[in-house]
Amino acid sequence: MSTEKNILEGAKSLFMQFGLKSITMDDIARKVGVSKKTIYQFFSDKNSIVFKSVHEHFSDHRNEIEKVLDNSKNSIEAMYKISKCMKLQVEAVNPTVLYDLQRYFPKAHKRFLEFKNTFIKDRMTKIIEDGIASGFFRKEINTEILVIQRIEQAQLAFNNEIFPRDKFDFKEIHEQLFDHFLHGILTEKGKEKYNQYLNEEHDA
Amino acid sequence: MSTEKNILEGAKSLFMQFGLKSITMDDIARKVGVSKKTIYQFFSDKNSIVFKSVHEHFSDHRNEIEKVLDNSKNSIEAMYKISKCMKLQVEAVNPTVLYDLQRYFPKAHKRFLEFKNTFIKDRMTKIIEDGIASGFFRKEINTEILVIQRIEQAQLAFNNEIFPRDKFDFKEIHEQLFDHFLHGILTEKGKEKYNQYLNEEHDA
Repeated sequence: MSTEKNILEGAKSLFMQFGLKSITMDDIARKVGVSKKTIYQFFSDKNSIVFKSVHEHFSDHRNEIEKVLDNSKNSIEAMYKISKCMKLQVEAVNPTVLYDLQRYFPKAHKRFLEFKNTFIKDRMTKIIEDGIASGFFRKEINTEILVIQRIEQAQLAFNNEIFPRDKFDFKEIHEQLFDHFLHGILTEKGKEKYNQYLNEEHDA
Repeated sequence: MSTEKNILEGAKSLFMQFGLKSITMDDIARKVGVSKKTIYQFFSDKNSIVFKSVHEHFSDHRNEIEKVLDNSKNSIEAMYKISKCMKLQVEAVNPTVLYDLQRYFPKAHKRFLEFKNTFIKDRMTKIIEDGIASGFFRKEINTEILVIQRIEQAQLAFNNEIFPRDKFDFKEIHEQLFDHFLHGILTEKGKEKYNQYLNEEHDA
């Protein structure tokens, strides 16, 4: 692995564990086992490490989701898998990252918003439209409104003021919100398919 | 009506129409047709008018909701009516009010949070628990998580960054989110009851 790649990997792992704001260039140098001088050969400042890390993170995440969707047999499986993907990703990240992004790293935050409001929104819209066409999802729903609320809702689970971590289990929140979202759009036919899918997942 | 009551009514109507921040003591005096000196006989400053207005607003709103719930025949009707009540209330208020509250009037904002996180949360929890007991709502749901998300979701419709007013119709957002929320918790038996209720509402 190149030194630049090494530095980014080290920084990313520190950021995900401890948030963006609290990590210093010294922390990164120590973690990677290089001098700060070496780091500055590749990155002008911490801002640029944060941006590059966030950018790479969402590019990887996007590729992962594309792959998962390519391998989905129907829109219910696709909804399930895209949510599982996002859950795993969120679980791996310290909740302060989102707060730090919003507050201190506007350029990297913009990258996150783009991922969320363009890539995820487009994919979920496509999944739901397919699901309506297949008779799995109710045709009465306004896809755009529900996709937006689902994306925002997924972030709610993150919010320590709304769901304090000492009181709620993140996994439980995620599962409840996903299951509720899906039941809210499923037709009878869709419900059968979903239960069948859950049983298969369970047996697998 | 007493002068104090007159001032409060005038201030409330200005606040609801234009938000809290932009309204001055002069505006209120003009609206009510009294001098500023008269206003200061009853209220020490604008802060205190804001707090009193917000306090009264939520006390009235609470009484209204209690009455509506007393007259509901079952938990589906109760959910429908509590949502309709909140929709009407939200529609009557300029969306900047919530923003102004959060930003500039912490004491009055606390009053709003109390209304939302204590009164509304308690009532909705009770309705859902009753609905589960009656077989209208799915027993697999985690009531607390879903009540919290429903309350937060209702505020989402307010958010101009998430649902820009020039693009979305507030009524449509509200109806979609309510209908989706309910479908997400309804059993088959509950769905029948809900459709029956909607038909009756429609005929009424």
